[in-house]
Amino acid sequence: MKNVLIIGCGLIGSSLLRAIDNKKIAKKIFIYEKSKLNISKIRKLKLPCEITNDFKKIIPNLDLLIFCTPLGEYEKIILKINKYLLPKTIITDVGSSKEKSLELIKKKLKKGIFWTSSHPIAGSEVSGPEHGEKNLFYNKWCILIKEKNTKKKHLKTLSKFWKKIGSRVAIMDSKKHDTIFSMTSHLPHLIAYNLVKTATDFEKQKRYDLIKFSAGGLRDFSRIAASNEIMWRDVFFNNKKNILKAIDLFIKNLHSFKRDIQFKNNKSIIKKLIETKQVRKKIIKLKQDINKPDFGRR
Amino acid sequence: MKNVLIIGCGLIGSSLLRAIDNKKIAKKIFIYEKSKLNISKIRKLKLPCEITNDFKKIIPNLDLLIFCTPLGEYEKIILKINKYLLPKTIITDVGSSKEKSLELIKKKLKKGIFWTSSHPIAGSEVSGPEHGEKNLFYNKWCILIKEKNTKKKHLKTLSKFWKKIGSRVAIMDSKKHDTIFSMTSHLPHLIAYNLVKTATDFEKQKRYDLIKFSAGGLRDFSRIAASNEIMWRDVFFNNKKNILKAIDLFIKNLHSFKRDIQFKNNKSIIKKLIETKQVRKKIIKLKQDINKPDFGRR
Repeated sequence: MKNVLIIGCGLIGSSLLRAIDNKKIAKKIFIYEKSKLNISKIRKLKLPCEITNDFKKIIPNLDLLIFCTPLGEYEKIILKINKYLLPKTIITDVGSSKEKSLELIKKKLKKGIFWTSSHPIAGSEVSGPEHGEKNLFYNKWCILIKEKNTKKKHLKTLSKFWKKIGSRVAIMDSKKHDTIFSMTSHLPHLIAYNLVKTATDFEKQKRYDLIKFSAGGLRDFSRIAASNEIMWRDVFFNNKKNILKAIDLFIKNLHSFKRDIQFKNNKSIIKKLIETKQVRKKIIKLKQDINKPDFGRR
Repeated sequence: MKNVLIIGCGLIGSSLLRAIDNKKIAKKIFIYEKSKLNISKIRKLKLPCEITNDFKKIIPNLDLLIFCTPLGEYEKIILKINKYLLPKTIITDVGSSKEKSLELIKKKLKKGIFWTSSHPIAGSEVSGPEHGEKNLFYNKWCILIKEKNTKKKHLKTLSKFWKKIGSRVAIMDSKKHDTIFSMTSHLPHLIAYNLVKTATDFEKQKRYDLIKFSAGGLRDFSRIAASNEIMWRDVFFNNKKNILKAIDLFIKNLHSFKRDIQFKNNKSIIKKLIETKQVRKKIIKLKQDINKPDFGRR
């Protein structure tokens, strides 16, 4: 590739920038970034890119355009760049929720332009270009969305792109994607946020110093609950339908756990507590985590 | 100290054994362990101890006796050792739930014998003597329980003991302990179990291969939900009163989150998502976790 444009250079955008540079995938990487703070960070870090807002000049010559902003930013930017886009331009994004966002994209994008959506299953609780990692995508799944109107050629090029930076590629439609990730990613984040919120409310109520003793479990949730609030608001709102269902299933199960504790249902609770271990074994077998005990980080 | 007896040599018992040996705190460490599998592991690992069931000979000469079994085992063992216990024997345990277990201990323990309860805030999702770590307690809190009938001399000796193996000691009564840890430890574990259970149910319903894509958040919960089921059943049952209240508060908050998503209440959800970040900052300031982004373990 010659020219790549990354729109939004936070954790994911700057990790892609580093990965593309590291693997020498493009000759030139352009960055569009609206945050002045991020721009000054990128300059200070001397990231190998050219910061630009000259869409007119750059977009017609692009091989790849990647949206790395929160979902809520897409519309505004699409309307800005629409007139410069060409049918050959390969456009993708890295958003965590697909069905609703692709509906919006289809509505707003100029006719005859293709958008091929990606979702790299990688990230962290920190935000900003200073935290980017060139190996962030290495050995991680990247989901590519294939719908009726997906341009096969673009899908193929994108698949090669993600593989080059080390990802494993899986292809599915947006509906399946949003169902799966409502459960494996969106609900876990919501639950972590809710747990930390509950602990905070409780601390205020009781006036006990709880956080000091958070190493027993709360600590790990607090890390997940420190993730970027704008990104997650957008994900929750965009995948509303599936997340609401996931919450209901979660609450139903929690009521069942509550009954087990209330009435000391030994058999029932042990069955639940053992079942979850099998999932852990599967996760390790599938190399989604390492098989090393965690004693807390030092 | 001359002689220490550890009853139950799993993850915590064997970590204590290693820590005591490492810091040369006792001349001789005795182990009582009912699991034949664990006994053979202890022998294979050549842990510096003597495995015994000769309570009659050993208990009268003990400086310290530590229960490291699940809470549900206490009664049986107390009844077995009662007749050999002396008022000078310092007895402690490492259980995660205190109020109900101390009630039971008071009822079952021979009159004139003192029990001073400990709770080291340290552990992992793995079980068994092969996973023990001599530094498990280093820089971690250990809660000592002080009640009306607590023998001050014993409390003082125990406090010194935990400090010697590197712990920071905090003293509180069992009621306060159980309230705090219902929120910082028991609820988080229950929630992790419930999340993994919900994902499993969902996978069966949808016949999608979810676990493969668990790196987006579910993975981290699955680790916590792989903890020992007997230990956790006992903790949940013993701290029932506080845990049921914590579940109710959690569900109330989750309903509020659900409404925010359902009606796209921007202000309200952003407030929630930002609040939790403050907790993270506090946790890092209090050195309950390190300030290093987590990109998944490799």
